[in-house]
Amino acid sequence: MIFYGYFRSSSAYRCRIALNLKNISPDFVPVHLRRGGGEQKTKAYKQLNPQALVPALETNGVVLTQSLAIIEWLNETYPEPPLLPENPELRAKSRAFALAIACDTHPLQNLRVLDYLKTELSLDQAGLDKWCQRWIGDGLNACEQLLAQNETKGDFCFGTAPSFADICLIPQLFSAQRFGVDISKLHRLNAIGEACAALPAFANAHPSRQPDSEA
Amino acid sequence: MIFYGYFRSSSAYRCRIALNLKNISPDFVPVHLRRGGGEQKTKAYKQLNPQALVPALETNGVVLTQSLAIIEWLNETYPEPPLLPENPELRAKSRAFALAIACDTHPLQNLRVLDYLKTELSLDQAGLDKWCQRWIGDGLNACEQLLAQNETKGDFCFGTAPSFADICLIPQLFSAQRFGVDISKLHRLNAIGEACAALPAFANAHPSRQPDSEA
Repeated sequence: MIFYGYFRSSSAYRCRIALNLKNISPDFVPVHLRRGGGEQKTKAYKQLNPQALVPALETNGVVLTQSLAIIEWLNETYPEPPLLPENPELRAKSRAFALAIACDTHPLQNLRVLDYLKTELSLDQAGLDKWCQRWIGDGLNACEQLLAQNETKGDFCFGTAPSFADICLIPQLFSAQRFGVDISKLHRLNAIGEACAALPAFANAHPSRQPDSEA
Repeated sequence: MIFYGYFRSSSAYRCRIALNLKNISPDFVPVHLRRGGGEQKTKAYKQLNPQALVPALETNGVVLTQSLAIIEWLNETYPEPPLLPENPELRAKSRAFALAIACDTHPLQNLRVLDYLKTELSLDQAGLDKWCQRWIGDGLNACEQLLAQNETKGDFCFGTAPSFADICLIPQLFSAQRFGVDISKLHRLNAIGEACAALPAFANAHPSRQPDSEA
């Protein structure tokens, strides 16, 4: 199994957490998103992933892409420990929370979008920061409220074990910090962040601990 | 079961297709995204969905949100007909294709993002069109190539029956048309579009056939 990623990519970070939770250690191939105009845009990488995005996971000659599809595959192929609650509605809620981040929050602050805003729309750094803060702020505020709707007990988003929701939340909290978003009032999310950071699967997936880290 | 949607929303359109494929007809409550500043932003609706986005599906007093989480829930709760292939890697590929649209294509052309570009960044109609065309074009081009990587037979994205990929593709093709994106060279996607349009589950989910349609 080969994992293609980049230390700072949120989507790669999600997969690292899931792989660690499943105790799977694929070989790692770094794809530098900035060097030489972006290694993800090379012909060789686009043959693996035509979307020119990380991550990708190669397994038995098949290349899987999209972090949440990779994580669903991991969860179906290696059922223990489960990364979704058993209850059907809680499964849906954990997935919805994950998608609120993966669809409506993270893609708006993605490198290719920021590049477009900078080069095509001449947005300056203050404008870029405001853009990121708006979408990350809205996204994480909604996430805090999604949890307030629930009465599940436990240290994690949807119970006593981490699930898709936590796997997406932690990289997004890291991004929020990077882009200077004030999340001090999101008490539940911050508490979950601390609970996750205490688990080796999450701690070892942190961007600063990767072989390609520049932090 | 109550479905909250809007005729033109891609995400609601996806859920309508999935509900039709499963032969489920929930009651429908229209949420007008434009009227009165947007009915999705009312306090009442945000109690259902703090993200202030459609769709939402209420079932036994529980409110499910995020189109792909709703569709996963439908597929787990009502297994027939299955909306994912049986083969684990093909399941991952169908989900990845769906996510390439749901994460990396659709959210960038979403109403709230276009509103920000218009009001905060003073983008004119030509600029908005270029923005939409860039992300929809990139997204659908990548989708065409994702299918070229595969050798599955059949009229649909991943085989002889529609799956998550087709359910996300059709609303995105509709959006491409709306935003004037030239997709005439995406032969495989167009052929799949025709195969889907011939199925009542897809045809009846079309925005023009909804009770709240203004088309």
